Amino acid sequence: MKKAKKKINAAILIIGNEVLSGRTQDLNVSFVSNWLNVNCGIAVTEVRIIPDIEKKIIYNVLDLSKKFNYIFTTGGIGPTHDDITALSIAKAFKVKYEFNTEAYSILEKYYGKKNFTDGRKKMARMPKGCSLIYNPSSAAPGFKIKNVLCLPGVPSILKSMMENLKNYLIKGPITLSSSINLQTVESYIALELEKLQNKYLKKVDIGSYPFFRLGKVGVSVVLRSSNKLQLESCLKKLNIIIQNKKIKLFKNN
Amino acid sequence: MKKAKKKINAAILIIGNEVLSGRTQDLNVSFVSNWLNVNCGIAVTEVRIIPDIEKKIIYNVLDLSKKFNYIFTTGGIGPTHDDITALSIAKAFKVKYEFNTEAYSILEKYYGKKNFTDGRKKMARMPKGCSLIYNPSSAAPGFKIKNVLCLPGVPSILKSMMENLKNYLIKGPITLSSSINLQTVESYIALELEKLQNKYLKKVDIGSYPFFRLGKVGVSVVLRSSNKLQLESCLKKLNIIIQNKKIKLFKNN
Repeated sequence: MKKAKKKINAAILIIGNEVLSGRTQDLNVSFVSNWLNVNCGIAVTEVRIIPDIEKKIIYNVLDLSKKFNYIFTTGGIGPTHDDITALSIAKAFKVKYEFNTEAYSILEKYYGKKNFTDGRKKMARMPKGCSLIYNPSSAAPGFKIKNVLCLPGVPSILKSMMENLKNYLIKGPITLSSSINLQTVESYIALELEKLQNKYLKKVDIGSYPFFRLGKVGVSVVLRSSNKLQLESCLKKLNIIIQNKKIKLFKNN
Repeated sequence: MKKAKKKINAAILIIGNEVLSGRTQDLNVSFVSNWLNVNCGIAVTEVRIIPDIEKKIIYNVLDLSKKFNYIFTTGGIGPTHDDITALSIAKAFKVKYEFNTEAYSILEKYYGKKNFTDGRKKMARMPKGCSLIYNPSSAAPGFKIKNVLCLPGVPSILKSMMENLKNYLIKGPITLSSSINLQTVESYIALELEKLQNKYLKKVDIGSYPFFRLGKVGVSVVLRSSNKLQLESCLKKLNIIIQNKKIKLFKNN
């Protein structure tokens, strides 16, 4: 995997009426985002969820592929009529939508000639010139074209394919994070956190997130940075604030 | 609540580094989307997740507010430095960011004069001319300006506020849905589903979603329509297909 000095960003484009309608709870964003950061130092900085509508897919693929280093799409690459991701992306990039011979032979081998039905053959149709992302769990490959990487929507299958797309990606600096859960409310530490953020502007990103646990309110303070020394220095200062303000920590911090 | 004959659409804009980084699993999309359809006949047709960055919030609020009937934002309206939704939206619409007197008095009453700190006062600062969305669980109100409705990110607080925004919304036709879980694979019914979809084009939306349950593969076929008669007619034809192809149903269908 090549390595870049500057930050590499990405968008996730979730294609699926079932996520938009609220019927299906998306689980891919948190997994893909975390995986990309930890394994490749790529930061997901935008996510969009859109319906299975060709013109929406075309618009968003073109829009995001200009704005981000990579786009990861999920969903819409199965055998049924509502799986229109591959066709739409071919149209977006104005290339042919055709049988990929390698994908065709992978699928034919997996299903056997007799059971290689038209529906299954559809999964071998892809934009001309794409590269395959292999699928160790259910054979049907994803694909990469330009800076767009297409993955399935089923979380277990998607997870099994992540290792196989590493070679397509340029690695950036990994974002490190450190978090502390406090027995307090946000407004009690808001001013100090703001001062701390101003001190570490553009070096450490400080987030504050209220939560409820076992009937108690709390605040997670999360520090994020690609610079380990800056992160540790900021964490030390945060700990001094916590001591000075006599804030208790949550157990299992 | 007023009622419109034509379809009403909406976008959800999730503002929060913690969701993008994968640290926090979003739970608001499925809840808000389902709630808006069932209670108001409003269809969420796009979701975006963006970071706590002012220019990104401004761009997306303006972009989405032109394209959709409503935008629902979640997150970034608390007391800390990373809560910049209200300020950014004021800038987007070029109105003052100032103390809302009603919000100020609600919060002052809730916390008591003595405990009404600067951090807490910040939650009363909003775009000039906005209307409040009352918060029965933790006092700090959301707000509506133009077609943008701003809600908090904490799911339990957001849920408690939904009833209080009904009066701001024009009601559309509710999307009805019906689903059947089949003991089969998608490719076995792909051709028949495509024919059925072509028959009910623009009347019923047919989705097909593979899943794994108790070690078995299955397919959920979901029919969605705002026309009850068309939905029932399509469901009858789907059941005939299922019988003809001798597909078993999943228990607890």
